[in-house]
This record gives sequence, structure tokens and C-alpha cells, in this order.
Amino acid sequence: MADNKPSGSVLDPWGESSVSDYSRLFEEFGIEPVGTLADRFPATHRLLRRGVWFGARDLGRVLDAVNSGSEYAVMSGIKPTGFYHLGTKTTAEAMVFFQGLSRRARVFYSIADVEAYCDNGLKFSESHEIAVGNVADILALGLDPERVYVYKQSEEMRVMNLASVFSKSVTNNMMRAIYGERSFGLYFSALVQAGDILLPQLGFFGGPKPVIVPVGVDQDPHIRLTRDLARRYRGEFGFIEPSSIYHKLVHSLTGSEKMSKRDPMGVLTLNESSELVRRKISNALTGGRATVEEQRRLGGEPDKCVVYEYYRDHFLDDDGRLLKIREECIGGRRLCGECKAELADLVVNYIEKHNEKKEGLMDVARGLLEEGSRVARSGGSIL
Amino acid sequence: MADNKPSGSVLDPWGESSVSDYSRLFEEFGIEPVGTLADRFPATHRLLRRGVWFGARDLGRVLDAVNSGSEYAVMSGIKPTGFYHLGTKTTAEAMVFFQGLSRRARVFYSIADVEAYCDNGLKFSESHEIAVGNVADILALGLDPERVYVYKQSEEMRVMNLASVFSKSVTNNMMRAIYGERSFGLYFSALVQAGDILLPQLGFFGGPKPVIVPVGVDQDPHIRLTRDLARRYRGEFGFIEPSSIYHKLVHSLTGSEKMSKRDPMGVLTLNESSELVRRKISNALTGGRATVEEQRRLGGEPDKCVVYEYYRDHFLDDDGRLLKIREECIGGRRLCGECKAELADLVVNYIEKHNEKKEGLMDVARGLLEEGSRVARSGGSIL
Repeated sequence: MADNKPSGSVLDPWGESSVSDYSRLFEEFGIEPVGTLADRFPATHRLLRRGVWFGARDLGRVLDAVNSGSEYAVMSGIKPTGFYHLGTKTTAEAMVFFQGLSRRARVFYSIADVEAYCDNGLKFSESHEIAVGNVADILALGLDPERVYVYKQSEEMRVMNLASVFSKSVTNNMMRAIYGERSFGLYFSALVQAGDILLPQLGFFGGPKPVIVPVGVDQDPHIRLTRDLARRYRGEFGFIEPSSIYHKLVHSLTGSEKMSKRDPMGVLTLNESSELVRRKISNALTGGRATVEEQRRLGGEPDKCVVYEYYRDHFLDDDGRLLKIREECIGGRRLCGECKAELADLVVNYIEKHNEKKEGLMDVARGLLEEGSRVARSGGSIL
Repeated sequence: MADNKPSGSVLDPWGESSVSDYSRLFEEFGIEPVGTLADRFPATHRLLRRGVWFGARDLGRVLDAVNSGSEYAVMSGIKPTGFYHLGTKTTAEAMVFFQGLSRRARVFYSIADVEAYCDNGLKFSESHEIAVGNVADILALGLDPERVYVYKQSEEMRVMNLASVFSKSVTNNMMRAIYGERSFGLYFSALVQAGDILLPQLGFFGGPKPVIVPVGVDQDPHIRLTRDLARRYRGEFGFIEPSSIYHKLVHSLTGSEKMSKRDPMGVLTLNESSELVRRKISNALTGGRATVEEQRRLGGEPDKCVVYEYYRDHFLDDDGRLLKIREECIGGRRLCGECKAELADLVVNYIEKHNEKKEGLMDVARGLLEEGSRVARSGGSIL
């Protein structure tokens, strides 16, 4: 299989991306900084305040819809191969947030079970059970089940029909320019993702509307492809170019970018046992110094520290407390051992509470998937 | 769009194919001559006796199933963009014949409405109405409605899921070797066709079995691709390599190969008015000489004559009468004018009877499509 990673600074939605300098992406890919739009959000969020949502495309269009009370969609997806981890949780939190900004928002959540079969060998019945858990996870994070369409890739024929239509105008050159030289299968799945992203604008779902896609920035190539296709097929479908908001990639516990299920000791899932949480975090990469003496003298480096990142991006909503940790670290008054233990307590507590909520939502999740199957199977018409 | 026709002797499923020497295909592509298997057919057919079915792949496997009374499938499809013409009729007759050879045969008929939308701009509701007529056509040709699954491409998610799976192991090099350098969209649709051809072997439809695909020989590249994929995915799905039987391409009235809806004066549909039948046939390309005197002296050339081809391949079942026409022509005792008029009478009569039958079968056709929708939408599981 000709599957060569793109070279240079092409973002790679399928690989182990690494972005050393997020600000370079503004210039290089025309991604817009979120910060300049911060005052147009009617509510705040930890991920916004702390710059984890750093970049976007056409975010203004969605904020207009939010602020004028007009309809919009929030779209993202998950490959149902395991438990939520900090990366998938970050996407889910964005979906919950954007759904919560307006009563006119509807969420579309694509369960990529065909990919789970192709990439991980999971049968649909197996990935279905995993998907139930994933949907319960996002419900536990606050998603309103009344305004969400959860569908499985194996059943939503409209998505495949869009992909078929798009395939007619796509060339290998065009795909190569966006993704680099990749396998036919990856190009194929990119078209399916474009179908996912444009699904909310079909007549069946109420027609053209702003759509916000919250994803890790490594998924930007899909957004660019889809925006291109939206322009090409505007005449036929009336598509509005979808908007996106990007979060910084979540480092793994071992410091590699990005967190992935493929790295068992690097991933932190929402299903970890307390014991494993403590063990993994105690082994995490920090911004600490070689010795306690040095740490006391020079202070730690929170901006190089995965433990600090997790406080900031995931487990500490209180800005004051976060600042205190940061200052204690830099000032050499906080050592890594105690800092890790404190984080572990927060994480264990978070996971416990999350799973309590989740447990009570499994039936709702199952119901959403059933209802989704019904809608997905109701037809394949795209016009 | 990079859509260059393949050069050399590559068969082109999407173009205006022309095959000057069918016997060359045996050597060049490993297509097997049907003639050597003729005595293993438990019944005869005009298209078999007259060598219109000239080539095949793995036909023995299907004849084994026929003769041993074991299960097999007959699979082909149509793009619902207009009335049946002599080319689509030829495929349909083969399907009817192979269904009729055994009570254990089941037909799968794919209605390529997504292609009809992409290529011809027909909305699904429009192509649906055309499909009803197409299905009534094949019923009028003798298809048993009790043993057929008619499904629309826009609804049969299993086909798309197979295409998704196949996309993972396909490379551009592999596609180029089979189809020449073609557009991404054509490669995409080739994978969908592979999904169509392998659909009958899914567990949902009773699992692996011999499948015969009757098509024009220009479709052989799809068969080769699908046989390759069947081998690759044998471990996962148990696929048996599908078999095929090829008919010679039907010349258009104007002598070009192959008959196509795109050439209004060259195509002969089963919906032509008597007047148009007579007009088109009177303008047809014959193997006649420049003058009556010459024709009397040298005789005509039936093997270069579209009119003779239509007698032989479509409108004259009686071998004796056909031979008589041939001899009269070669002997200079039959002139083109009367020969054309005689064919026109046969065609007008055929069309009239066909449409009487068809009229009475429109409701059955509609019912089959409805039932097909129900089955197609019943799920996307491929394992």
C-alpha cells in the first residue's frame, strides 16, 4: 500500500502529528486565531480562556448564528474502538459547549464503525457496544440528548451517497495537494468524512446552515477538502462552507504528541482504575529538574510539563488555583512528586464522578443509537 | 478531471469500446471461450447457439452448481437513465436464462441510481420511475419475481460498506493496471461495483456461493478487479471468485460499437414507436453492395451487417429461418430494402408484445423495488 506520510509541514490527520509552533499554522494554512473572536462568545469555557482552542476557520459565521438565534449544527465523530481518552474528551467538550450556546443548535455525532472494522478489525456488533459507552461518555459530559443525531457510518447511506457524488469531481492531484501522497483507502475515507461534515446541510436535515466542526488541528486537511467541496457543490446543494474550531493536540503521558489508544502507557482514558491512574501519572513526563535541589533553585517548567497541561486543559476549572500551581512550580516551591499526586487525586475523583453519571446514561445512549439507526436507515436521498 | 481513456487493448467499461477480434481476448486477457462448455448447459439459448455469449470466466463453477442443484446467484445491474435497448436487453436475457436453469438460482439486480445522478443529473425520484420500467422490462423478458432481489445503489449500505473495506487494500497502481489512468471517481465507482458483485455472498444473503455475472465484455475489467478482491478477502468473508459470461457488444444501428443511449439514431429501445422503428432500421448500416446489380451479382455480406446481427441476436429464434436469410443474402437473392422491412415488422411486433406484457407487470416491478428498499435499508452489516 502506497501510504507515505506527507512531508514538510502538511498536517496529517492519520499520523502521529506534532506541532511545535501553533502560531505558524495561522500563516501557513490560513487558520484564524480564536483569540480575536473571544469577546463574541456569549459564554466562556476553560478551553477558550486557556488557549487550548487556539485556531479556527470561519468561526465568525457560527458565532453570528449563536448571537442571532438562528439555526446551526455542531458536527464531529469518533472511531468506536475504545474508551474516551483526553483527546476524544476534548472534542466532546467542544461539542457540548457549542450545543449549549443556543437552543437552535443541533449536534451530529458520527460513529465511524466502518473505519473501526477496517483499521482495527472490530465487527459492527463489537464496535456498537463500544459506541454505546462513547455516547454515554458525551452525555455524561453534558450533551443534551434531545438535540443530537447519533448515527453509525455503516448505516447512514446519505453520507456514502455524498461521498460518491464528491468522488466525481475529485482528482488525485487535488488529494495529493491536501494530504500528500497517501493510499487510495485514505483518500476514500477522506471523502466519507466530507460526507459526514456536509450531512447536516441536506434537505432532510433542514437544508444549508452554518456548521461548526470541533476537532484536533491535525484534522484540518479534512476541513479544507470539505470546504472546497462545499464550494464546488454549492450550486446543487446550496452548501455553506463549514466552520471549524481546533484544539491543540493533547500530549500523551509520556510526552509524545498526540495521545492515542495505540500507546497504552501514554493514554489516559476515562475508564482507568485509580491504581492505574496513579501509576501512569507518577511516570508522566514533567517539566521538573534533575534533582530536588535544582528544582528548588531554578523552579520547574510548566510549559514543558504534561502534568501541568492536564491540570490546565482537563482537570482544573478554577483559574485561581491553576495560577497558584503555576507560580509555585516556577518558584521552585512545588515538587513534581506532590504535584503528580495532587493531579492523580483530581483525576481519580473526576473519573469516579464521570462514571457515576455515565452509568445512569447508558440506556439513554442505547436509545440514541437505536433512534439514529432508524433515521439513518430511513433513506438515502441527498436531494 | 484526469480521465484519460486507456490505451492499447485495455477494455474500457466506461467508454465507446470497440472489439475487432473477439478471439484475441482469449489469449490477451485469459477469457475462456464459452463454446467448449456448451454441452454442459442443460438448456440452450439463442445467444449461446449463435456465439453471442462468446467468452466467460470460471463458468464451469456455475454450471457445476446448475447441474448439481446447488445454490448460486446471478448478478448484474443497470443505470436507470432510460428505456431498455438491445444492449441492456441482452444482459437481461442472460439473467433470465441463468435464473431459469435451476430453482436454486437467485437474481441480484442493482439499480445504479447514484451513478444516474452523478453522470446524468437524474434525481433519485426521477430515476426511481425509470427503474420501475426497467424492472418491468426484465420481468416481461421472463424473470421470476419470486427469486430476485432488486435494490437501489442509494440504499444498499452493505455494498458501500464492502467498497469501503476494499478501498483499504486497493492502490492506484493496481487500479491503473486494470483500468488505465482514470479519474478518482471512476476508480471509486469500480469499487462500488465490486461491492455489488460480492454482495450475494454475504452472510445476510446466505454466505459464499458461485455467482454468475452476465455483462458486455467491455465490463471485464470490473470482473478482474472483483476476482482479485475476492481472493484478497477470502479469509475474512469466504468469498468465492465470481464467474462471468460475456456477450459481444451490440452494434448501434449506424454501425458503431457499442449501442448507447447517447446516440439517439443509433439506439433501438424497447419503447420505440412503430414509425421510428421503421425509420431507424431503414437507415441502418447493412452489408449490402453499392447497387442492386452488384448485390445480385456478388451477394451481400451478412457478417458486416447490423440488420443481420439484429435478426441473429435479437429477433429471430428460428435457426432455420435465420439460415435461409443468410443464404439468400449471400446468394444475392435478398435485397437490403426488403430485408430491412422484414426486420422492422419483426421488431414492431416484438415491441408491441413486449409492452403488452410489461404493462401488466408494472405493479409487480413497483412491489419488487419497494421490497428491495425494505431489505436494503434493513442494515449495513457485512459480517
